[in-house]
Amino acid sequence: MTQGCTREDQDFTRRLPDFAALRAKVAGISPDPPERLAKFRERYGLRITLLADPELEPAAAYGAVKDGKTLRSTFIIDPTWTIRWYERGVKVPRHAEQVLSVLREIVTADRELDPAIRFRRAYRATADEPVDKATVERLLQAAHLSPSCFNNQPWRFVVAEGESLTALKEALTGGNYWAKRAPVILAVASKPDLDCRLAGGRDYFLFGCGMAVGNLMIQATRMGLIAHPIAGFDPEKVKEALRILEEYVVIALVVVGYHGDPNLLSDKHKTLEYGPRERKPLAEVAFWRYFGTKEAGNGK
Amino acid sequence: MTQGCTREDQDFTRRLPDFAALRAKVAGISPDPPERLAKFRERYGLRITLLADPELEPAAAYGAVKDGKTLRSTFIIDPTWTIRWYERGVKVPRHAEQVLSVLREIVTADRELDPAIRFRRAYRATADEPVDKATVERLLQAAHLSPSCFNNQPWRFVVAEGESLTALKEALTGGNYWAKRAPVILAVASKPDLDCRLAGGRDYFLFGCGMAVGNLMIQATRMGLIAHPIAGFDPEKVKEALRILEEYVVIALVVVGYHGDPNLLSDKHKTLEYGPRERKPLAEVAFWRYFGTKEAGNGK
Repeated sequence: MTQGCTREDQDFTRRLPDFAALRAKVAGISPDPPERLAKFRERYGLRITLLADPELEPAAAYGAVKDGKTLRSTFIIDPTWTIRWYERGVKVPRHAEQVLSVLREIVTADRELDPAIRFRRAYRATADEPVDKATVERLLQAAHLSPSCFNNQPWRFVVAEGESLTALKEALTGGNYWAKRAPVILAVASKPDLDCRLAGGRDYFLFGCGMAVGNLMIQATRMGLIAHPIAGFDPEKVKEALRILEEYVVIALVVVGYHGDPNLLSDKHKTLEYGPRERKPLAEVAFWRYFGTKEAGNGK
Repeated sequence: MTQGCTREDQDFTRRLPDFAALRAKVAGISPDPPERLAKFRERYGLRITLLADPELEPAAAYGAVKDGKTLRSTFIIDPTWTIRWYERGVKVPRHAEQVLSVLREIVTADRELDPAIRFRRAYRATADEPVDKATVERLLQAAHLSPSCFNNQPWRFVVAEGESLTALKEALTGGNYWAKRAPVILAVASKPDLDCRLAGGRDYFLFGCGMAVGNLMIQATRMGLIAHPIAGFDPEKVKEALRILEEYVVIALVVVGYHGDPNLLSDKHKTLEYGPRERKPLAEVAFWRYFGTKEAGNGK
């Protein structure tokens, strides 16, 4: 109930509709007990959520305790529970406005395409610089957190290494000459009975592998890596190189590496490396209301 | 060649191995012409990259020009070309150390799992709050930027609306009762001849749809949305509801909405909503060197 807290909470209460318009919730955390906070809230007509932290537990976890006392601090937490901005040792005047303005910037950025989705593409110029095992493991963890039908987790990955990598590179088609420089190539394999097989031609195993590879590519891009899935290989030779059982479908090899010198690519591929990304107009693949109709309500 | 620039560039040169260890490159940009920068670099033994910006073009684009003069500024740019941190009006003393410490925090975070991959799961408690069309379009754009075999883009999306949404909800199985509250459901459909069909059972259409849905889920999660792909529906009824042609495979419906009240879920689903994420041990799905061997060099 200090002057600072009162002013701060009134400022945030006044700005609450602006925060709500950004789909943000505002909560104030204080060492006071709930009853005291309830009185405080009522006395000053506060409308933000107030939370009691008498043991200074969240306060300590957020680094907002100094010499046993709380430091007035603000944290902006995004929908994935990631702290995107913070300030410790906050000055109350104009603070709510400042937070609102930072939040607006963050929300505006998050309404754009995810940077990794926007940046990712089928880059071919991998460096021969090695990628360490912990990094490759992180890519596999990302893939493995993908959803699947009934959580069947139909994906199997084989990371080629040493002689299996050498043999795998012999299974590439000529057009994938560039992948021979890559430090890491991993195979994605599955078979129909590792996943649901439902009416209407719905075999889920390859769809599941696709979602997993989607995660893998995002994680790689974020870590500064190229992760380029290819289909240009001899599947029998790949199975032999990696000792993959006959009944598996090797749906893709994913070529992984840091960005290298595009001058080592063919002229065609050098142009593609930084050329425009080609996609059909969205209206040819995405429809509203009914299949094949571009605008809502047009009928078929 | 001012004292500030000299000191700053020498500080960054001294720290260059630390930056390199984080896979970061350091470049200094100045309005001086290249020849002058070359002399400067040589005279002071600088090893960072120096770039000439005589017209103040990048400088202006980065907001580092004030009253026609450059503002000493620093930007940390990540592998997706996103500015992650910046400071305008930099003070030289201890600046290189500060930048290194901020960068270390960012790189450490980026070596962890992508927050959207970590946070995403098959949430069921959607709010009935509407999701605007621009937001759904953003999800579709993200999906459409996914890679595909020969860039065939085999995915087709139908966003149910109005009577088609009502009809679609009738096609859900009982276990998906929760999806009836969702403001948006979209169907993902394709057919084999929209994509490559290669030797070794490699039909790419559903793998491609999977990668696209992977992107869609990441984008949705980042925007604070649930995007939950389901298989529990009658495919014939879905085709009828959305007027999808018979030869297509409707591989998934994706249920989209903001997070709502988990108390509206069945007891089983309420527990699942915030329960632990279940995955097989990574070593059961990912192998090094050869299929089915957990450790490199173990043989088959």
